[in-house]
Amino acid sequence: MRQISNMNIPRTDQKRVVIIGGGFAGICLAKSLRGSKFQLVVIDRQNYHAFQPLLYQVSTAGLEPDSIAYPIRKILKKNKNFHFRMATVNGIDPDVSEIQTSVGSLEYDYLIIATGTKTNFFGNAALEQNAMPMKSVPQALNIRSLSLQNFERADQCEDLVERQALLNFCIVGGGPTGVELAGAFAELKRHVFPRDYQHMDIDEMEIHLFEGADRLLPPMSETASRKSLEFLMNLGVRVHLNTLVKDYDGDILTTNKGETIRTKNFIWTAGVTGASIRGIKEESMHEHLNRYRVNRFNQVKGYPKIFALGDIAFMETERYPGGHPQVAQPAIQQGKHLAKNLKLLEKGKSMVPFEYHDKGSMATIGRNKAVADLPFWSFGGFFAWFIWMFVHLMSLVGFRNRVIVFFNWVYNYINYDKAARLIVRPYNLHRKKN
Amino acid sequence: MRQISNMNIPRTDQKRVVIIGGGFAGICLAKSLRGSKFQLVVIDRQNYHAFQPLLYQVSTAGLEPDSIAYPIRKILKKNKNFHFRMATVNGIDPDVSEIQTSVGSLEYDYLIIATGTKTNFFGNAALEQNAMPMKSVPQALNIRSLSLQNFERADQCEDLVERQALLNFCIVGGGPTGVELAGAFAELKRHVFPRDYQHMDIDEMEIHLFEGADRLLPPMSETASRKSLEFLMNLGVRVHLNTLVKDYDGDILTTNKGETIRTKNFIWTAGVTGASIRGIKEESMHEHLNRYRVNRFNQVKGYPKIFALGDIAFMETERYPGGHPQVAQPAIQQGKHLAKNLKLLEKGKSMVPFEYHDKGSMATIGRNKAVADLPFWSFGGFFAWFIWMFVHLMSLVGFRNRVIVFFNWVYNYINYDKAARLIVRPYNLHRKKN
Repeated sequence: MRQISNMNIPRTDQKRVVIIGGGFAGICLAKSLRGSKFQLVVIDRQNYHAFQPLLYQVSTAGLEPDSIAYPIRKILKKNKNFHFRMATVNGIDPDVSEIQTSVGSLEYDYLIIATGTKTNFFGNAALEQNAMPMKSVPQALNIRSLSLQNFERADQCEDLVERQALLNFCIVGGGPTGVELAGAFAELKRHVFPRDYQHMDIDEMEIHLFEGADRLLPPMSETASRKSLEFLMNLGVRVHLNTLVKDYDGDILTTNKGETIRTKNFIWTAGVTGASIRGIKEESMHEHLNRYRVNRFNQVKGYPKIFALGDIAFMETERYPGGHPQVAQPAIQQGKHLAKNLKLLEKGKSMVPFEYHDKGSMATIGRNKAVADLPFWSFGGFFAWFIWMFVHLMSLVGFRNRVIVFFNWVYNYINYDKAARLIVRPYNLHRKKN
Repeated sequence: MRQISNMNIPRTDQKRVVIIGGGFAGICLAKSLRGSKFQLVVIDRQNYHAFQPLLYQVSTAGLEPDSIAYPIRKILKKNKNFHFRMATVNGIDPDVSEIQTSVGSLEYDYLIIATGTKTNFFGNAALEQNAMPMKSVPQALNIRSLSLQNFERADQCEDLVERQALLNFCIVGGGPTGVELAGAFAELKRHVFPRDYQHMDIDEMEIHLFEGADRLLPPMSETASRKSLEFLMNLGVRVHLNTLVKDYDGDILTTNKGETIRTKNFIWTAGVTGASIRGIKEESMHEHLNRYRVNRFNQVKGYPKIFALGDIAFMETERYPGGHPQVAQPAIQQGKHLAKNLKLLEKGKSMVPFEYHDKGSMATIGRNKAVADLPFWSFGGFFAWFIWMFVHLMSLVGFRNRVIVFFNWVYNYINYDKAARLIVRPYNLHRKKN
């Protein structure tokens, strides 16, 4: 008989639902299963759910990390027969309905893969080694530390060339993350750093944003692209459209046009790929995107007991032949929907197909400036910025986090400040990124 | 001619005051020098001033680190001709009035050493390697991460002996830090962990506090000692008086009585020693305490241009033949006092001797429980706790920090919660402590 370690989770008479990933999809599913007759196991590498849309504010000293993260155990403390495990999942063995994790193996009755995406460097080892990604709280903190450390170094540096490298901020990727980061750095340059570094010529700080397409925010409307470009240029950001960054050796960035820029601040937001797990057969994957092919019930093709949700799921529909956009809304909606379907399944009823309701998308560029694409209206400016703030505040988990983020925003707005500019744990270039 | 790198700080016609250390003493001096005719240089290894009395709340998930720290550049942004350098000072060369730092050398006209203390392991290498100290924000965060990680590991652990080691919290040192930490862990055990770890028997968590003297809080009154012991015992803390911890190998703790306890959470608050810098001759040091001998003007003996402040200064007076207590108040008062004296010195007037005004001392044990020694009154209980909160809130630097700490306290109080229990950067036992 095979020895099975059960990670100290006892088998009860309830069926076991195992969710891998505590992002939007996993958490929404778990919350919606409250009161259902399942044993629930949530596995994540972190003990918290992070609100990814605000990571860029952690990177740019606008918010402290604790206010955009929330302990998973606390979110789900009202679920009965619930277990959380902080672990990495290394593989799935569908033949015996089991997963292998860093802390042992576990059987499942239903397995839900909600692992999201990871940064895609498109196989370029130099980029992977030298670029700063921004997909997690520690990574966002690394960017905050590194950029502040580089300002400190610049202030004591007498060499003009070296100082320029320390003060050049290069962001690759003109999607929402890149646009929001560039805008936030521009605000630091305009309002905060001149007060902190009074002996420095702030014009030496340059912010560059690179986008391969011919416009910013490619998945959004033309209005959003045009307005965001206008806002960024007014803030002094140098936007390089139709430009791919081919290489970065830790010192010099090279574009596909042969242009080079010396920089010590190189942030990569130019692509993601699915954070897939070993064990699912190739034909059930979209190889290029690294997403699991699912049917309208989010079932991974060929595996009736395995589901995939959110960014990692590839659901072809008539309206979305290329799969749903990899943003929060499809993840949230699929998580809630699957909870209903699992309950139906248990009652022996048939599941209901998923239908995505696009609520629109938004990006903020800075003080009083944002762009919004609602289903029938694209616009930009103060009103979009106000809506952006309201929506993001209300989307945060927990009353405490909402109050603290709100207070920070009001404080920073009134004082033209970004108050969390602390190098709490200095970034070490030789440390493996986590 | 000797080549002197000036760390990119130009010589102006103003005399240069160099302050090493951005703790209470250094910051109070720097703030009080606002408007004076000096060039001011502040050097610290961190870019922020940390409010050390609340570090224990960072360790126990009550506060996020950003709310008890404040950027030094921001505190001093109104000072004219002010420079900050994030650097380590490696030595002092009084013969040429110069210091050597990790980012170059610097001449001074007046040098102020305000480096405080560091953890003292009394030469025990095993303790130094395996114990968690708590003198800085990163160290406090390490304790938070490690204790939460150990709870996660305990939840998935089937072995009773190993689980007990993960759930034993051993704190060495019955001074204010040790007492406050033990009380805060006891509150986590009582109110927070039972909700988070519903499948665990919370009684398996034990909190041990070790003190070499025959009473807790040895520098405080008998009333404070008695009350704090009573409060801790009511909270279920096992207090070991007259007990020295001789050894800890990362797994097993051994006392001078031969008792052993298996633990993975071992926090050392049992002693400090001066964080002195090379270059001052031996007769100007109190060798045992590692503090600089200063006269009533805080001048280091034999060095008219070098001053020492706060914890690192050893000023023998009639009322304090063993030097002032190493707490915030002498540092704050000496910092402000020295600012006056430096201004007098510049005007060719004679300096005024320092006189310490004891405002009393306090320690908090938990919800509604604290002890206070005011100059003519020692008491404990709810009123002491209320005073403790008010004094600490008002002592924080910055309106923003006060509001956020206040909100966190109110939130945690009402909800019997400690909301910041995030493992933002997992503690790695093999990482060098910083």
